[in-house]
Amino acid sequence: MSDQTHLDALQALLGEQGLIRTDRDMARYCEGARYDQGQAAFVARPASTQEVSQVMAYCAANDICLIPQSGNTGVVSASTPDDSRLQAVLSTERLTQCFELDLDNRSVRVGAGWRLSSLNERLAEHGLFYPVDLSADPCLGGMVATNTGGSRFLRYGDVRQNTLGLEVVLADEQGTVLNLCQSLRKNNTGVDWQQVFIGTGGAFGVVTECVLNLEPLPQQSATAFLVPSSLSECAALLRQMENRLGPTLTAFEGISKNALARTLEHVPSLRNPFPQGQLPDYVILAEVSRPWAVREREQSLDETLEDVLAELWELPESPLADAYIGKPEEMWAIRHAVSEGVKSSGKLVAFDVSFSRGDLMRFREAMAEQLPQAFPDISICDFGHVGDGGLHFNLVLPFEDPRLNDSGFIPSLREWVIARVVEDFSGSFSAEHGIGRTNQRFYDQYTPAQIKKLSGALKAATSPAALSAIHFH
Amino acid sequence: MSDQTHLDALQALLGEQGLIRTDRDMARYCEGARYDQGQAAFVARPASTQEVSQVMAYCAANDICLIPQSGNTGVVSASTPDDSRLQAVLSTERLTQCFELDLDNRSVRVGAGWRLSSLNERLAEHGLFYPVDLSADPCLGGMVATNTGGSRFLRYGDVRQNTLGLEVVLADEQGTVLNLCQSLRKNNTGVDWQQVFIGTGGAFGVVTECVLNLEPLPQQSATAFLVPSSLSECAALLRQMENRLGPTLTAFEGISKNALARTLEHVPSLRNPFPQGQLPDYVILAEVSRPWAVREREQSLDETLEDVLAELWELPESPLADAYIGKPEEMWAIRHAVSEGVKSSGKLVAFDVSFSRGDLMRFREAMAEQLPQAFPDISICDFGHVGDGGLHFNLVLPFEDPRLNDSGFIPSLREWVIARVVEDFSGSFSAEHGIGRTNQRFYDQYTPAQIKKLSGALKAATSPAALSAIHFH
Repeated sequence: MSDQTHLDALQALLGEQGLIRTDRDMARYCEGARYDQGQAAFVARPASTQEVSQVMAYCAANDICLIPQSGNTGVVSASTPDDSRLQAVLSTERLTQCFELDLDNRSVRVGAGWRLSSLNERLAEHGLFYPVDLSADPCLGGMVATNTGGSRFLRYGDVRQNTLGLEVVLADEQGTVLNLCQSLRKNNTGVDWQQVFIGTGGAFGVVTECVLNLEPLPQQSATAFLVPSSLSECAALLRQMENRLGPTLTAFEGISKNALARTLEHVPSLRNPFPQGQLPDYVILAEVSRPWAVREREQSLDETLEDVLAELWELPESPLADAYIGKPEEMWAIRHAVSEGVKSSGKLVAFDVSFSRGDLMRFREAMAEQLPQAFPDISICDFGHVGDGGLHFNLVLPFEDPRLNDSGFIPSLREWVIARVVEDFSGSFSAEHGIGRTNQRFYDQYTPAQIKKLSGALKAATSPAALSAIHFH
Repeated sequence: MSDQTHLDALQALLGEQGLIRTDRDMARYCEGARYDQGQAAFVARPASTQEVSQVMAYCAANDICLIPQSGNTGVVSASTPDDSRLQAVLSTERLTQCFELDLDNRSVRVGAGWRLSSLNERLAEHGLFYPVDLSADPCLGGMVATNTGGSRFLRYGDVRQNTLGLEVVLADEQGTVLNLCQSLRKNNTGVDWQQVFIGTGGAFGVVTECVLNLEPLPQQSATAFLVPSSLSECAALLRQMENRLGPTLTAFEGISKNALARTLEHVPSLRNPFPQGQLPDYVILAEVSRPWAVREREQSLDETLEDVLAELWELPESPLADAYIGKPEEMWAIRHAVSEGVKSSGKLVAFDVSFSRGDLMRFREAMAEQLPQAFPDISICDFGHVGDGGLHFNLVLPFEDPRLNDSGFIPSLREWVIARVVEDFSGSFSAEHGIGRTNQRFYDQYTPAQIKKLSGALKAATSPAALSAIHFH
């Protein structure tokens, strides 16, 4: 059949709004949030699970590779087509009809096309929120496919820990709809199939609806910038805070001096919170919060944080060198500006890696020593989720660095860093961004053959047709 | 080959301690914790992952069905052989060598043969514990295979939420060892294969080691018995408590009047905590706890609980009718005695079911009305985890009830109740006990054909040889 026949058939299935065929209208679906520029055969925008099923069945029968796309905010080229014009985009952005809030169960069933911000806006009326907190504003389907984690993982966990049920469409000739949309918290009646579709980028099936765990919205919070007495004391500081604050400790985020300096320099609205403008070598943003307003006979969270920090300060060989309690919105503004601040200061080569919590600082120290020897004149401007071992290990070169003219330079830098992460520290080459075309080669390189074989069999059993840019076998 | 040949070959692999062949010594491996009496071909007790691998390879090559057994504390006949003498028990009880504590990561890697109590004893020295709290004392391998939940699920989640990594041996002719023993909290680099082995009773592979998330041990706790203003207000009471206590609320357990009365009657050491011995229709045991000792300027948890209950009490149309703050150990002693108390009061027909949290009380109300019509003269003596929707729906008949002589009576009662749970309330027929021979037929009946097909393909891909008493296809 000709391409035109396919387009006409799909148009008939999906209607006017459901299919995009012109280059101009397809452009925004072909461009990634940070990198990437591809070309799509077409963009299908089904408006219901049934339409998703019909498109997937049609494409499976006709060997058309679909790239599932949700909010398209990812940074690993998982949701955009390559430039062959042979891949088509399956956008789930119109799957927004479903919104079923269950207050007693603290859960909501929503269509995959809901934006996180829209969902949380709607939930706020009920004093609830979906607690996977990100700087970006993705849609829920993509969050499930990526198993996003974010800044408050320490307290709330990732998408996997906050998903009760899913509805998924498989890439087979029937466009099979798997209804895994339970809203139970305890249920052990067989294989928990939803786990297969969480964090696998849509390659095993496309999420159309999800049932999510919700949490009561925080009503109080307090924050402080902490200066650890040394890098190697960071883990001890975290443990001491956890022992004294339990789940009240809702974030423990680290920012390197380099990252902080560039952020303050490139985002003029931010105020340097440190005396005499002196930046410490490493800063922790610690947040405590809780879901109720302060009660009459109760200590406020600011006082709690003060008391705990004073107690830590007085420890013999204290892991805390200094601490500044400040306004949460000002401190988070700095933390949230880091990513962009670093990016505008030069050519960014970003890594989203993770470690056992104790290894995070050991990795940083090893890199401070080894990187200049292997790749001189590169600034390490990292920040990270010290509370969960996640590290945004950002390297920055001057825009005018001549090495950037060599197309092999960045790939070899990437390879070297990832080898240190995985081989020397048993770390992860993708902590919370998932797999896409960008890091497919690290999957290929570091995944044991037996796991590839199992994943290949799983792919054949679930979605045998071409779906997503990722190959797991 | 003759049975004797197999026994001799396995003896050579496993040594003196590793194989049990006499009926007398095999007896305790053939008897379930609550029900069940089978007969094993032999009992293999490998002492290392390598020995597990060798046994599994040998049995796969020789068509010997292995039933994995861990602490053998389960109640659904998942870990004992049938009476054919054709199945052999693979006990993981000797897998106790590994114990690698990582304080900075708040995690431990342990052999599957560790008892929960021994693990927690060892962890207590470091102020930590594995937070999946149960009345029984299983081994870790079995807890993973069952995905146990327990009484503090509301705060800490189940085994799935507290497992970072696994080592698993597959039932194939190579005895493949899958090393999924990572200790990362954020890692999205492909299919999260460990999820397949959690909660599936060992049918897809036998867990030999696990990496577990640990939590700081509570240092303060306070408890109260709450009387809701009506059954239908229970869910509202829970929500109000959650909004005012957040993760400080670590248990919200329900006990029916029938269950409480029988417990107090059959366990004479317990004191009736209610004035004039009047038992309320339904009681909630609420616990608040936190991992630090009370600080100088801070309110105690008893005061916090008092204030919150006073606030709830004063609400217009309060969901709270009455409340009694009491000693945690006394209140938990009553809660933990319920299971045995109910059991000693008559013939017990137990159900481990779950619901969306709001449906739990609606199910109870429906049963109070419908059960006497369908099956007269049966006492409902339920208790449950109201905080997570889990319900131990226990029915009790007098020991001398003549219907017990009819072998079809209990199966038909079971079938009727489970039909109400699943068909009328979209509930689960196994909340936290997993699947075993006992509830295989409910799996067969209520699992969609497409899920069975997928699970069959997964079984063929992972452990094609006969492993466990459970059939997922």
